[in-house]
Amino acid sequence: MGRLSTLFSPDRVAVVGATDSDGAVGRAITENLQASFAGDIVAVNPYKESVLGLHCHDTVADVEADIDVAVIVVPPDVAVDSIREAGEAGIENVVVITAGFGETGAEGAAREKDLRETAAEYDLNLVGPNSLGIMSTPTGLNATFGNEMATSGGISFMSQSGAFVTAVLDWAAERDVGFKDIVSLGNKAILDERDFIDEWGTDPDTDVILGYLEDIEDGAGFVQTAREVTQDTPIVLVKSGRTDAGASAAASHTGAMAGSEAAYEAGLEQSGAIRVETVQELFDYAQILADQPLPEGKEVAIVTNAGGPGVMTTDAVGDSGLELADLTDDTVERLAETMPDEANIYNPVDIIGDAPAARFEAALETVMADDNVAMAVVVACPTAVLSFEELAEVVVDCQQEYDIPVATTLMGGQSVGPAASTLTESGIPNYFDPARAVDSLDALARYDDIQSREYTDPETFDVDRERARDILQSAADRNQNRLGVEAMDLLDAYGIPTPEGEVVDSPSEAQSVAESIGDEVVMKIVSPDILHKSDIGGVEVGVSPEDVWDTYEDLVVRARNYQQDATILGVQVQEMLDVDAGTETILGVNRDPQFGPLVLFGLGGIFVEVLEDTTLRVAPVSEPDARSMLDDIESAPLLRGARGRDPVDEDALVETIQRLSQLVTEFPAIVELDINPLVATNDGVAAIDLRLTLDQEEL
Amino acid sequence: MGRLSTLFSPDRVAVVGATDSDGAVGRAITENLQASFAGDIVAVNPYKESVLGLHCHDTVADVEADIDVAVIVVPPDVAVDSIREAGEAGIENVVVITAGFGETGAEGAAREKDLRETAAEYDLNLVGPNSLGIMSTPTGLNATFGNEMATSGGISFMSQSGAFVTAVLDWAAERDVGFKDIVSLGNKAILDERDFIDEWGTDPDTDVILGYLEDIEDGAGFVQTAREVTQDTPIVLVKSGRTDAGASAAASHTGAMAGSEAAYEAGLEQSGAIRVETVQELFDYAQILADQPLPEGKEVAIVTNAGGPGVMTTDAVGDSGLELADLTDDTVERLAETMPDEANIYNPVDIIGDAPAARFEAALETVMADDNVAMAVVVACPTAVLSFEELAEVVVDCQQEYDIPVATTLMGGQSVGPAASTLTESGIPNYFDPARAVDSLDALARYDDIQSREYTDPETFDVDRERARDILQSAADRNQNRLGVEAMDLLDAYGIPTPEGEVVDSPSEAQSVAESIGDEVVMKIVSPDILHKSDIGGVEVGVSPEDVWDTYEDLVVRARNYQQDATILGVQVQEMLDVDAGTETILGVNRDPQFGPLVLFGLGGIFVEVLEDTTLRVAPVSEPDARSMLDDIESAPLLRGARGRDPVDEDALVETIQRLSQLVTEFPAIVELDINPLVATNDGVAAIDLRLTLDQEEL
Repeated sequence: MGRLSTLFSPDRVAVVGATDSDGAVGRAITENLQASFAGDIVAVNPYKESVLGLHCHDTVADVEADIDVAVIVVPPDVAVDSIREAGEAGIENVVVITAGFGETGAEGAAREKDLRETAAEYDLNLVGPNSLGIMSTPTGLNATFGNEMATSGGISFMSQSGAFVTAVLDWAAERDVGFKDIVSLGNKAILDERDFIDEWGTDPDTDVILGYLEDIEDGAGFVQTAREVTQDTPIVLVKSGRTDAGASAAASHTGAMAGSEAAYEAGLEQSGAIRVETVQELFDYAQILADQPLPEGKEVAIVTNAGGPGVMTTDAVGDSGLELADLTDDTVERLAETMPDEANIYNPVDIIGDAPAARFEAALETVMADDNVAMAVVVACPTAVLSFEELAEVVVDCQQEYDIPVATTLMGGQSVGPAASTLTESGIPNYFDPARAVDSLDALARYDDIQSREYTDPETFDVDRERARDILQSAADRNQNRLGVEAMDLLDAYGIPTPEGEVVDSPSEAQSVAESIGDEVVMKIVSPDILHKSDIGGVEVGVSPEDVWDTYEDLVVRARNYQQDATILGVQVQEMLDVDAGTETILGVNRDPQFGPLVLFGLGGIFVEVLEDTTLRVAPVSEPDARSMLDDIESAPLLRGARGRDPVDEDALVETIQRLSQLVTEFPAIVELDINPLVATNDGVAAIDLRLTLDQEEL
Repeated sequence: MGRLSTLFSPDRVAVVGATDSDGAVGRAITENLQASFAGDIVAVNPYKESVLGLHCHDTVADVEADIDVAVIVVPPDVAVDSIREAGEAGIENVVVITAGFGETGAEGAAREKDLRETAAEYDLNLVGPNSLGIMSTPTGLNATFGNEMATSGGISFMSQSGAFVTAVLDWAAERDVGFKDIVSLGNKAILDERDFIDEWGTDPDTDVILGYLEDIEDGAGFVQTAREVTQDTPIVLVKSGRTDAGASAAASHTGAMAGSEAAYEAGLEQSGAIRVETVQELFDYAQILADQPLPEGKEVAIVTNAGGPGVMTTDAVGDSGLELADLTDDTVERLAETMPDEANIYNPVDIIGDAPAARFEAALETVMADDNVAMAVVVACPTAVLSFEELAEVVVDCQQEYDIPVATTLMGGQSVGPAASTLTESGIPNYFDPARAVDSLDALARYDDIQSREYTDPETFDVDRERARDILQSAADRNQNRLGVEAMDLLDAYGIPTPEGEVVDSPSEAQSVAESIGDEVVMKIVSPDILHKSDIGGVEVGVSPEDVWDTYEDLVVRARNYQQDATILGVQVQEMLDVDAGTETILGVNRDPQFGPLVLFGLGGIFVEVLEDTTLRVAPVSEPDARSMLDDIESAPLLRGARGRDPVDEDALVETIQRLSQLVTEFPAIVELDINPLVATNDGVAAIDLRLTLDQEEL
């Protein structure tokens, strides 16, 4: 049982602000509770003797029996007092319907801060404020002011929009969509999405967790919890504000500071939640995940009485992550024996237009028994000889007998009605459009993949953390927040290979470093005031030892010419690598307000700047996460020897990604960091250039 | 009036093979005609006196009155005779229901050839064979053997699957989807998709043309006709067999040889038809295109009573080709005056949860009058104070008053019913999912763009066609079907710039060409047997004049070492261009069985080989088509000076694409041609290397 189990299955609920005034929210909630709640209802209202047949108490303190949940529906200016009284009375769960908090400007925000502190003081499980309320079908709990009670089922649903809850309930009432718990999250002052997925993840009656979210407060924490939960229970989410326009609309609606879409995309993918874009997908996926077994593969068999729709279904399979099953010879032989000559006995199996339900049955039994078939789609057009009702029963029986996922496309309208009910009551989705049937099956296969993910703990390498801290601290001491190559030792301290070299501050030192390198060198001016070194002639490559002294002086002169008062930390003298022998990559880090450090990887140059071919992960990045980054970019073949290149040392890249992830996780003071280029060759990597932004406060 | 107007609005229809046998197709058709056809029905059956109350004639020749359409439903072995009799009797339109032709193996294919010749002999407008039949609602014509008659409306629909027609009719009967004409194309022996779009393009009662196609027989012809038709009438198509799996399913279903998906994609885009992937899109788009005016822009205003669904709708706008309207100051001011303080008066306009229909009306009138608003989406969640019925009336009134496109998202189920009917009866689509509402509006905007396309005739350049023919002919004379740089003059004949140089067959000639070039040269072995010249050391760059003689001999020796009996045509001695100063592109041509020559353009090297970043057009390619190819590739910024490159001479590229298009259009013998690389600099282009495949039969 989760921490919030009493919230959803209380024995006694108090309505603080119960009333019988027409149109009042406090009346709607009381009536909704009276309509179906199996437990006790306590009315609290100091101005009333009784409300709707319930005796009224002045405060929750006056109630002798234990109250499990207090629903607060008093005016905003007294709401925090009511919450405190609930806390004092030992009530653990509070649902705050009252609006007028963070969503309404400065006064409301102050009030929400108060509310938050009070709830924390009493360690309350607090929903809202500004919530439509909560529902739970097993106890008939309807502590909302909506018009509709949910019907019973396996979907637990959280929504950051109360209106969307009312819409969904109204819509679901016509369909076979049943719910376990529903919560309108409101302003999420205390309980948020992470708490509810955690709760429902251990709830045996929740088959699928569904969410409509406009933001995620603690991205990294959400990823962690969702990874655990999705091992057992699928999570399907709409995260709105995906587009720039949507994000600003969401900001003006909830006042929530939304993180970047790129961070959500990366974080949700890593979390194991299935993110969908449309409301249609949200419920299509929820229903099939709640009702059907998971497939043991991605191979789909199609059985149809009509060639054209069979082709459309095959296209939909081709568009999805699924594939067309390759029927065994046995299956094909059996179909050849039992089907008419004109039938197509290969997948998609076309049992032709004069097929009655019995022929569908024979074909389905044959293909569903085939070990190469993980799922089936039944596609039928109306004909004079086919009863859709009989076909629906055949499909239901076959699904139960063979226990593999099935979806149907009975292509019609009026003649489908009763058959569709038979199917959906048995948990088999039926759509006019074959693409929806196939997409629903694809959602099952995607969840199966998620469930079999193995999450590895991020590796902790043996690094020189003290040295790293010293480098950052000394930058902070000289009040330098933007660092360049002078911080290359930071990478070295974390075991990220850098070319041999040093930052020096005199021509003679430059000379001696170059001599110890013993070959041509690269020399770069080092100044926090000069971001684009090449543009001002601040970089010289292929400098032979005898030219080092003069080059040092030239570089300083050019820097001074560019900016008279630039702070010049010296000149970097670096071993000259054969960059052409390797592949330039870029490895970077950025911080997202919700998800924390994000690690970016891609190929350098045009790939990042023109083609924007990069991939992101929320840190800390584990070994498999890092390895998957190499696959994600479209230019991946170039790492693997395309067009006669040397394949790069992938292990070295993967390790470098992890080491960088460790560095930025251990030093929150590193706000941004770019290694560009990180040159990868067939026997290692080398960080050639570095830019870093420091937040001294975090040091 | 189109050529097929009598087919769809006949005065008299003969059923050849009319019968009253239970379950016979000839009975179903006769009964369907009797049920609703306003004209005369003539039964033809030599074995019956009368059928279903109709006197039977032995043959159509016995009928005294003029017959406009003969529906053939006799057995396959006598069908061609019946068609001949119809032709002899002067009947112009024939619908062949009978199956057992091209779709059933060799015997059927021979029969279809017969049928095709007979139909051609009498110049018949022949539908089918293997067709479900045709329908036309104005005359109540139902010459099909389906169960359902279409209701009247503005959609004309052709389908290469008869089963899909029955499915659509059954589905449409529940909805407000009305049709003008419907045709089941069958095997398309005579009449095909091109004939019907041509017919419906001039039919004032057809608002939208809809198609389900598995192949297009004459791709280039279809593009031409569709371009004309879509100036006035939108065409929305599902072309199935999009995916590899779907294409093989389609081939086994119809026996049709499908062209490549890439060709369909390019051809349909050029044709102006709107291609959709799902059945849902097909009908969503058809309905709104039939019912609503076209927008004068892409700017959408959203009016909602619920923030969350407003955000979802905004995301859907962001995903589409539309944009959020920027409301004028006047509009914002008026909204500020008329809406509650808590409302969001910027787009998406959130008139908050306590909005009755009247507030929607005030808000809608304000935003729809705004010149910055081209379209509107109304999004409403169920609340106690909002009547969906009243809201539907408000929306209908506003749409009619302001005459801009509107779609709605009444988010609910049971409480939406009557309101949805009010809306859809007035042509306003309503969906639970805001993404569908927005996508439908997007289809209107896309069609508006198509309608305002200006198709330019392909330019005909002054070229040396005789010289080109001589080059190809001389290759044919020596029986050489694969040509390389020895055919560079072909490009020159068509005005495509090539570097200075010649193919020579002796060291001394090589020497003299090099001397006339007067600088270092590139030398390449020229042999139809050596495709990858570089791999065998068959290319030398930077050869100075004094080394030309020896290099000639070396190249020949290497070629002989590679293949003793290789045909060696000589050595190409070519001016050495500074390739690094330019951008390598690739320009190629391929022939598609349906669409003819396809021109491909992209950047060379990794862009074509690894990233597959190329674009295709069906030839002939006009100037705007060619120019749009430069925009289509993702690497386009590299042509335009990204990362400090020199921008290339786009006009030269555009002209070269057109000249190549002209070359392959004028010489069908050129089956394949690749110019790789075609180097583009800031003052022109140069074709560096060439490969060409010749079909001598076409010369």
